[in-house]
Amino acid sequence: MPASPIRKLVPYAEAAKKRGTKVIHLNIGQPDIKTPEIALDAVRNHTIEVLAYSMTEGSETYRKKIAAYYAKNSIAVSADDIIVTTGGSEALSFVMGTIMDAEDEIIIPEPFYANYNGFATALGVKVVPIASSIESNFALPPIAEFEELITPKTKAILICNPGNPTGYLYSKEEIQQLAELVKKHNLFLVADEVYREFAYDGREHYSILREPGLEDRAIMVDSVSKRYSMCGARIGCLVSKNQEVIQTALKFAQARLSPPTFAQIASEAALDTPQSYFDAVSKEYVERRDLLVAELQKIEGVKVAVPQGAFYCVVELPVSNSDDFAQWLLEKFEMDGETVMVAPAAGFYATPGLGKNQIRIAYVLHKDQLIKAVHILAAALKEYNVQ
Amino acid sequence: MPASPIRKLVPYAEAAKKRGTKVIHLNIGQPDIKTPEIALDAVRNHTIEVLAYSMTEGSETYRKKIAAYYAKNSIAVSADDIIVTTGGSEALSFVMGTIMDAEDEIIIPEPFYANYNGFATALGVKVVPIASSIESNFALPPIAEFEELITPKTKAILICNPGNPTGYLYSKEEIQQLAELVKKHNLFLVADEVYREFAYDGREHYSILREPGLEDRAIMVDSVSKRYSMCGARIGCLVSKNQEVIQTALKFAQARLSPPTFAQIASEAALDTPQSYFDAVSKEYVERRDLLVAELQKIEGVKVAVPQGAFYCVVELPVSNSDDFAQWLLEKFEMDGETVMVAPAAGFYATPGLGKNQIRIAYVLHKDQLIKAVHILAAALKEYNVQ
Ligand SMILES: Cc1ncc(COP(=O)(O)O)c(C=O)c1O
Ligand SMILES: Cc1ncc(COP(=O)(O)O)c(C=O)c1O
Repeated sequence: MPASPIRKLVPYAEAAKKRGTKVIHLNIGQPDIKTPEIALDAVRNHTIEVLAYSMTEGSETYRKKIAAYYAKNSIAVSADDIIVTTGGSEALSFVMGTIMDAEDEIIIPEPFYANYNGFATALGVKVVPIASSIESNFALPPIAEFEELITPKTKAILICNPGNPTGYLYSKEEIQQLAELVKKHNLFLVADEVYREFAYDGREHYSILREPGLEDRAIMVDSVSKRYSMCGARIGCLVSKNQEVIQTALKFAQARLSPPTFAQIASEAALDTPQSYFDAVSKEYVERRDLLVAELQKIEGVKVAVPQGAFYCVVELPVSNSDDFAQWLLEKFEMDGETVMVAPAAGFYATPGLGKNQIRIAYVLHKDQLIKAVHILAAALKEYNVQ
Repeated sequence: MPASPIRKLVPYAEAAKKRGTKVIHLNIGQPDIKTPEIALDAVRNHTIEVLAYSMTEGSETYRKKIAAYYAKNSIAVSADDIIVTTGGSEALSFVMGTIMDAEDEIIIPEPFYANYNGFATALGVKVVPIASSIESNFALPPIAEFEELITPKTKAILICNPGNPTGYLYSKEEIQQLAELVKKHNLFLVADEVYREFAYDGREHYSILREPGLEDRAIMVDSVSKRYSMCGARIGCLVSKNQEVIQTALKFAQARLSPPTFAQIASEAALDTPQSYFDAVSKEYVERRDLLVAELQKIEGVKVAVPQGAFYCVVELPVSNSDDFAQWLLEKFEMDGETVMVAPAAGFYATPGLGKNQIRIAYVLHKDQLIKAVHILAAALKEYNVQ
């Protein structure tokens, strides 16, 4: 596995900090939002005497409560359709292992969450990227382009909805196009919906599990990490109405015994988080996004894909190589003793050369920090481009 | 992946319970021992506001404390030689992925922990079993037999010390023989030492990390699950002085982001568990073992491999097929409304046909339950063998 472009920057960020330069991190998807008290309290009040393995598929009470949460989100599944996993990460790995053998192919619109590559590499399966474009805000590529990539080895299409890094929220129509496609070619449709709760501007998230007739082909990956700002819990799940998929995934789950017990307690309690929490979080992110986009658009030569979901934003910069620019920001630049660390977008593309002039910004910072970060970016671009 | 013989029995156990028969579980490795209060309290007293991802390799304070624990156990490693994992399970998976490509081979003395197969299958690597024998208490097979199995695809030898299911504790001499062997053939030596703390009769556990000259080849897998009766925490680690191994394993770790945060808090606190806890636990297990072995040896035709470590015991029964016998125990037998569930040993062998007349007993039950279970087993054998 190659080192990601972000990892390569870490030593430069450390060196900058050692020099005394403050680094504002626009590169990390760790929300600053507080975890719901109800979840943290549940762990504080635990009454465990023997911290035993839980059920391999997750505790029954928790799975039942997840099913009820989905029902409220117009997703009709039962506890038996759910396997609780150690983060959405593990669910992704189980899904790939379940529906693919080594050498099989999975088509993924790029740019995409870079760790999809890591899980695929570990299992020996092949990621086939299909380019989406900043010009269309990273909307679904034309179905005809998918069809050109389908081979006898293609087993599935994987989408991230809303997207990391794109912030794109697929419409119901796009999901339906994909549904037709996978039915026609006998494929699975896998959706990473870990940012489901982060859909803005009154738009409704349309889960692949809501699409009628897709029951046998739809596999959804979910997580508590972002929804409740509980990344450290390490709880996610894999959901499918296809019991063959569930039973096979369960074998992978059995090998690793069980998901973490304390984290399941927190996650189960988190399901009682009041709607007001989500409303406040959503309002905050929308404000951050609006501010970020407005500030970025003031910079000459910058193009922004306005995100409708999640808390990431892909930005095209007037530079030829954002890897180099990101490194330069850490190595050579500072404004009043501060600089920014950004994620070069090349790390989110599988096709070499794509995204070279793009970066991803995670707007998980307070608004004043965000504004300052964009001002630093603007000043840096000015200096960088006259070099 | 095929279903394990134990999994196949689960529906029969459930049916028995539905009929009103009480099932004593000799098949499960979940200790009944209480988790140290110090670990449970640390979680109760957490002061987390944002439950964030921890460091990919585990929190620094925790890794430093683990290194100190190893130092006390005559194992000289630093925090940088340790990656904290989600259970020993994940460490096993990372190790296999790190040192092997698909089709590569790893030699493992059988009977072995069945999930080694699961991790290997998921990664497409091949487990090559080498038979150890109940006649020698499952001591290390002759080195010449290992050498016969080594091919250009062999990358490592994996031992479990003390062993699950064997309870065998390798001697320093055996470890040294293996060290010579892996040096001669340029292999890794991987040791699953999750039962390190469970070494009885005054015998000292000899870690592969104590063997001089093996620094580049030794990779150790550890876990808090059994040591502190904290199976539900899901914390383990991978330890090696070989920094190339650590750096490669770190890439697998990065893909899954981080190990669980609450569980790391518990595990870090658990390191302050007083020695008296371990002494009491060890005393309890030795008493259980002695009782179990004595009771089993009273049964005609039964052969017991006396365990020197862990809390498992492989027993040869006067039956031709322990799968069938185990099923019969659940389906057809009861004594005063009770029966026992045992683990057929065939599930711990990779070579078809081996272990057919053996079972594994986990002595993680109170002594009175254990005695009762063996009495049920004795009565059952009598009835079964006159059928
Ligand atoms: C798109 C996407 N999927 C999955 C994950 C995995 O998250 P976790 O394992 O914390 O649930 C992330 C984390 O950033 C993500 O961005
Ligand atoms: C020999 C052995 N190794 C590893 C494990 C994995 O344990 P955990 O993932 O809970 O650390 C077990 C669990 O039973 C085991 O018996």
